[in-house]
Amino acid sequence: MRCEIVAVGTELLLGQIVDTNSSWMGEQLALAGIDSHFQVKVGDNRARIVDTIRRALARSDAVILCGGLGPTQDDITREAIAEVMGVALVRDQAMGEKIRRGFEARGRRFTVNNLRQADCPVGATFIPQMPGTAPGLVCSLGKQVIYAVPGVPFEMREMMEGTILPDLQQRAGVTAVIKSRVLKSWGETESRLAELLAERIDVLDRAGNPTIAFQASGIEGLKIRITAKAKDWAAAEALIAAEETNVRAIVGDAIFAVDEQTMESMVLDLLRERGLTLAVAESVTGGLVGARLTAVPGASDVFRGSVVSYASDVKFNVLGVPNGPVVTADAAKAMAIGAREHLGADVGIATTGVAGPAEQEGHPPGTVFLGLAHGEIPEAMWVRLPGDRRRVREYAVISVLNLLRLRVSGSSRSPVLR
Amino acid sequence: MRCEIVAVGTELLLGQIVDTNSSWMGEQLALAGIDSHFQVKVGDNRARIVDTIRRALARSDAVILCGGLGPTQDDITREAIAEVMGVALVRDQAMGEKIRRGFEARGRRFTVNNLRQADCPVGATFIPQMPGTAPGLVCSLGKQVIYAVPGVPFEMREMMEGTILPDLQQRAGVTAVIKSRVLKSWGETESRLAELLAERIDVLDRAGNPTIAFQASGIEGLKIRITAKAKDWAAAEALIAAEETNVRAIVGDAIFAVDEQTMESMVLDLLRERGLTLAVAESVTGGLVGARLTAVPGASDVFRGSVVSYASDVKFNVLGVPNGPVVTADAAKAMAIGAREHLGADVGIATTGVAGPAEQEGHPPGTVFLGLAHGEIPEAMWVRLPGDRRRVREYAVISVLNLLRLRVSGSSRSPVLR
Repeated sequence: MRCEIVAVGTELLLGQIVDTNSSWMGEQLALAGIDSHFQVKVGDNRARIVDTIRRALARSDAVILCGGLGPTQDDITREAIAEVMGVALVRDQAMGEKIRRGFEARGRRFTVNNLRQADCPVGATFIPQMPGTAPGLVCSLGKQVIYAVPGVPFEMREMMEGTILPDLQQRAGVTAVIKSRVLKSWGETESRLAELLAERIDVLDRAGNPTIAFQASGIEGLKIRITAKAKDWAAAEALIAAEETNVRAIVGDAIFAVDEQTMESMVLDLLRERGLTLAVAESVTGGLVGARLTAVPGASDVFRGSVVSYASDVKFNVLGVPNGPVVTADAAKAMAIGAREHLGADVGIATTGVAGPAEQEGHPPGTVFLGLAHGEIPEAMWVRLPGDRRRVREYAVISVLNLLRLRVSGSSRSPVLR
Repeated sequence: MRCEIVAVGTELLLGQIVDTNSSWMGEQLALAGIDSHFQVKVGDNRARIVDTIRRALARSDAVILCGGLGPTQDDITREAIAEVMGVALVRDQAMGEKIRRGFEARGRRFTVNNLRQADCPVGATFIPQMPGTAPGLVCSLGKQVIYAVPGVPFEMREMMEGTILPDLQQRAGVTAVIKSRVLKSWGETESRLAELLAERIDVLDRAGNPTIAFQASGIEGLKIRITAKAKDWAAAEALIAAEETNVRAIVGDAIFAVDEQTMESMVLDLLRERGLTLAVAESVTGGLVGARLTAVPGASDVFRGSVVSYASDVKFNVLGVPNGPVVTADAAKAMAIGAREHLGADVGIATTGVAGPAEQEGHPPGTVFLGLAHGEIPEAMWVRLPGDRRRVREYAVISVLNLLRLRVSGSSRSPVLR
């Protein structure tokens, strides 16, 4: 079963919007066991959309069109599909009424143009999921099928998951399901992880199922993806759970999160469980640690606040760091202790270092010291982080949170990549 | 002149990497006056790459292939081009030597596989720009042309700017150049801007050159793009400069930056010029204001630091905010004053509010108060920001920086969208 993705919109060709929808759809098709050999971007031009659909149908079993379902004259995906099907476009009264009510419920002004969204090629049906005001379409052409979904990401996703993926799997007679789980790790390099897991990967390669793959994702950590194929969800889940146990036995607590979990959500959960509050002192990260923690709803149970001591004398006067050089292990410790005391928290963490582009106190960019004040004896560690200013700062954030996570959970593992 | 973009790589189809290269290339082609009607992603499969190139040549004058020029067996863009051209692939000794030296200079291990990158279809030439270890290709086929560039963004960009765009313009006989400038604004909604500029846009529409377009870009502000076409750069520049004067006369100091400039870089420059230092008190933004300011190299001249007072008693005890509700104009003022005093700065700014998803102190998500302590009389303002937690926080950051920018430069304009 082959499915082609066509993203419709002149703004995509002009680079005004990056086409992230096709990437997400491509990933979902792969996980559902559907091949996708071509993905095309085409502008708001009827002849070229028609041509693109025809070419896609000449080499694939299914086409998903994304975009061009809005209410304006530029939105011509419906017209193009009707032309390819060789049928008329008919306005669906019930859908028109539903769209009108949707506008009213959202307190938005309804204009008669919006009724264009109720147009449906004869023989096609609307996709039942409709989280916005644009309905999606399922258009069967014998054994082939054209789907159309809006370009608004959450609307597209709901229609893909609710209708298109199950329909494609049914048409493909896919009885197997493919399921995947991502284990996120921090503290080992990609090549070291590959070395650790080499023997296990050899065994899996011979069996062919499940499989393991790596993906470096910056501040999201280094991902280990386990993918399993089985006759149903429960069997796939069992294969993945067994393999997760194997991987965890080898990689250990460098794994910090699973799937949608993040380093910051895991750290907050861990501290909340232990009844601990957190204070942060930031220099090189300039506020990023606090920003990431507070991006998680409910952070206020745990996170009391931070002092961004960018100027050295703020470190001395506010955080009580001893006068002297500030890119040192001692300064990182003193900052963590100072944050904990100044903000009245149970645990303090700190970052100080050089993000670049210039060096500081004789240290090259990438030199970072992480500090932790947890219990009686403060800890600090040095790390040399790769990349430009942005990457050094991001790696410093995940590294200091990983230090906190490991020590609070009683692990003495190194929290940073060496 | 039509140019098609083909992104090569199975990882693109699987959604493991988002294809941002094609977006950037599409934007550059548009600015160079070259049409791009189709952009295609295809996997690492020789037959399908060949087929995609042939289809592209059937409907366009030029094709740019991006990716698949690496040293591994998966990298088959060179082979596919040779097949389309109907010529052999010949190893270029001088290029092989250059690649070997490039590896040595970078201290990377050279393997014989890397010599595959020196393969060149007979009749093609290498692109002179070569910032990495993969050479790009220019392959003429009569009046048509195929270009190949690596998928590494900075390598691709250097080859596009140095060779491909000028070559395409020359082939197209484009004597006109197209130049564009982005004015970034904050404080007026997109519909209000359109209203303000309506008369001017009518005049421009009749003349056709230059043109004005809008683009909302979240924390980057609301962009006004002026695009001009002229016989050379100087003439295009003159048209743009004249139009910029017109737009600024209408929109005024809601415009905060041009092209690559950002709100944070402009605020830092402004304070630096005036010899002022800055302290920040953050609650709802949790560290984002400091994080954005310190993303700019050299921020340390101006930015002394911030207190992220997430817990209410940190506001009371550290910043001296009077006990009581903290989502108020008075709390925002007191936070700004407290930050200025506590961190020893000339100017203080503050954010307090409700990012959501839950309400707080009876205020719905999106309720934000901005505070400013500059000179003798502190200022605070209320704003209701749209969107989810992430957007509320981002809009609060740009709004408080805009408040600071306007007041320090002596403007009494409203800094926020109403």
